[in-house]
Amino acid sequence: MSASETIAKTARAAGNVLKTLTDQERSSILYKIHDGLKANADSIENANKLDLEHAKSTNLSDSLIKRLDLFKGDKFETMLQGIVDVANLQDPVGKINFAREIDENLILYQITAPVGVLLVIFESRPEVIANITALSIKSGNAAILKGGKESVNTFREMSRIVNEVIQQNEKTSHVPLGAVQLIETREDVSDLLQQDEYIDLVIPRGSNALVKQIKSSTKIPVLGHADGICSIYVDEAADIEKAKRILVDAKTNYPAGCNAVETLLINPKLQNWWEVLDALIENGVTLHVSNDVKQQYKEFHSASDNIVDLDESKEFDQEYLSLDIAVTFIESARAAVLHINTHSSKHTDAIITENSADADYFLKAVDSSSVYWNASTRFADGFRYGFGTEVGISTSKIHARGPVGLDGLVTYQYQLRGNGQVASDYLGAGGKKAFVHKDLDATNITL
Amino acid sequence: MSASETIAKTARAAGNVLKTLTDQERSSILYKIHDGLKANADSIENANKLDLEHAKSTNLSDSLIKRLDLFKGDKFETMLQGIVDVANLQDPVGKINFAREIDENLILYQITAPVGVLLVIFESRPEVIANITALSIKSGNAAILKGGKESVNTFREMSRIVNEVIQQNEKTSHVPLGAVQLIETREDVSDLLQQDEYIDLVIPRGSNALVKQIKSSTKIPVLGHADGICSIYVDEAADIEKAKRILVDAKTNYPAGCNAVETLLINPKLQNWWEVLDALIENGVTLHVSNDVKQQYKEFHSASDNIVDLDESKEFDQEYLSLDIAVTFIESARAAVLHINTHSSKHTDAIITENSADADYFLKAVDSSSVYWNASTRFADGFRYGFGTEVGISTSKIHARGPVGLDGLVTYQYQLRGNGQVASDYLGAGGKKAFVHKDLDATNITL
Repeated sequence: MSASETIAKTARAAGNVLKTLTDQERSSILYKIHDGLKANADSIENANKLDLEHAKSTNLSDSLIKRLDLFKGDKFETMLQGIVDVANLQDPVGKINFAREIDENLILYQITAPVGVLLVIFESRPEVIANITALSIKSGNAAILKGGKESVNTFREMSRIVNEVIQQNEKTSHVPLGAVQLIETREDVSDLLQQDEYIDLVIPRGSNALVKQIKSSTKIPVLGHADGICSIYVDEAADIEKAKRILVDAKTNYPAGCNAVETLLINPKLQNWWEVLDALIENGVTLHVSNDVKQQYKEFHSASDNIVDLDESKEFDQEYLSLDIAVTFIESARAAVLHINTHSSKHTDAIITENSADADYFLKAVDSSSVYWNASTRFADGFRYGFGTEVGISTSKIHARGPVGLDGLVTYQYQLRGNGQVASDYLGAGGKKAFVHKDLDATNITL
Repeated sequence: MSASETIAKTARAAGNVLKTLTDQERSSILYKIHDGLKANADSIENANKLDLEHAKSTNLSDSLIKRLDLFKGDKFETMLQGIVDVANLQDPVGKINFAREIDENLILYQITAPVGVLLVIFESRPEVIANITALSIKSGNAAILKGGKESVNTFREMSRIVNEVIQQNEKTSHVPLGAVQLIETREDVSDLLQQDEYIDLVIPRGSNALVKQIKSSTKIPVLGHADGICSIYVDEAADIEKAKRILVDAKTNYPAGCNAVETLLINPKLQNWWEVLDALIENGVTLHVSNDVKQQYKEFHSASDNIVDLDESKEFDQEYLSLDIAVTFIESARAAVLHINTHSSKHTDAIITENSADADYFLKAVDSSSVYWNASTRFADGFRYGFGTEVGISTSKIHARGPVGLDGLVTYQYQLRGNGQVASDYLGAGGKKAFVHKDLDATNITL
């Protein structure tokens, strides 16, 4: 058996145990992990210093070094609090989605259950390991973790403590060793991506390049997003003040975010449409404009350094992740939908209009995970949606879409509880009995 | 552009239109398709005769020829009625799963939406084309269909009529031509399986071999099951009469079904456990028994032709699809769970016991899409579950599991309806406003 198969099988076995535990058992180990990490802050800080020294010696960028530093400001305390916050969330496992009487004493339940085994691949931020450990155990999943090599010493020390805590408490919490496994080499990842028999879901958290590479090299479902190509269509019937505020927020609040706007589709019939462009320029944004926008904008403004030519063959399909935005004219909501469904990465797209018929059409027609009316694309975020935590943002069409909370780490099972019933007694399988098929009120049922 | 890319892009465009239609529009075309097929029964029957003649000339088996014959008994009428039945189902699209007040006049909705584009690959039964056309259009999805070559004339004629009806009614129903495309060659299928940019879900309906081959050759999510390796564990505390009835039903009611039992795990501490084996033998079943079962069974019975040796290295991992069953001793519910989680295909597994603690443990611990207590595995079926229709049975861990109804053809989108709100006004993005995050009663909301 290969090393990665052993890891995957160990995770599967641990997942099968985690699946049977109560919320109390799963949450109790999280409080203990919180305590263990807190008590070992010194050894974690020492490991983190090693990573920081190595990063400085290899001339990593300042922003990357800042991300590596787990003890900057209150980052470590926030990480610890995050574990407790996840432990305190409502149990995502064992919820009855529906209950149906199939016949007398034959009741069908659809019940949430852990997905099973997660492979989580992330980059250098060391606090992510605590976050993912908490999310996985809380949702009854086993996790295999691979962090960026820049934080290897910090990861290794935190993983050692997490596993020590799990081992010491296995008799009381019943959370098995193997619930959280850290792997360290790239080779292990590529092997694990082939273990589709044992691994149920891959969650890459990091750059586009990382996500794209993973999506192209595995048959296991991937929860994540590569690009966030978000568009905003400013309609003829837009309130221009709303449009200005929303565009400036969506572009400048956090340009590196996947929910930042990358394309402005503006209707030239909107009175004073150029004011939206002015507002962006005033806030330091460089506009990449189509030829007709450029010509018409010139009628009202002298040349500006913040206006450059748009390459339509490329720029509608890429993220700037900077204070840049593509701008083109679009003559109707219908044309905007066509543009978005062709170019968007199915993340988040918005319409700004006071015309509710156009808004309704847009909301229904755009094929993205989040569709907005008169609001900034920056709201596409698990915390802003009220999920308590965010596992990631998914641009897949199935399973979990958009910002994903703890619910994205569970699936469901059917339970049928009977009293000796057999199919051949019923119509369709040779018998004469008819099915009852009466829905029951699941809110009153405890199994 | 390749032929398959053209087909996939056409489907994507049609799906984008279907997504915006009302249930009334989507259902109205189904009634028209029903009428069109009914009015053209003669031409369909002629085409079907061509297929039957060709089948006979190539010495296809009688059972296969029976499947091809669309006008045998009331098959054609049942098919027509099926279209109307699907049209009359509740609209699966646009249901509000939840509604949440993010802030004043900023409301988040999670709403069901079509998956988009389906690629459905099926074998020779000609009536399937009508069923899939109905399911796809009802759920707002575009479909690309590939049927078995044995029914090519019937498929072609039915597809011609379906598309003629769609075209004639495009102005009123708004269902676009391209909503249902039939492809005829195997080459097209392999090319289409690479079109993951345009196709969202592949649904293979047919043999294990077909499903396995498709799963191994695409990155598009596949809704389906290859194997149905279902087990029943008869516990020490089983009611032996229930055990006998359930085993006989699960094995003999329809042995070729994916929900038929393939493995009997029997606890030797159950009093008169051999009676369960006797009951199976009396009903014509051949028992493939482990060595210890064989030795002990011999104490009570003389040699029987219906007992053969079990090859444990193989037979726990295969479907018989015949009147055969693997039998081995298992000493506890815990050991049964371990066996099932190792060998089952995550379809349907059952425990027979009067011990509710063991039953609860089993139901929670078995990692299959359906888990049963004191009921036959044969209940794993969309109609028996009360779904009105069955799209297929899925053994995937995510999206849709177990018997899949129309709900398996939809996903969800988030809609955020605001009044000009921007993220930077709120805590966490630079502002001071707190989020409200108040859940609203979705049952009272119409958008």
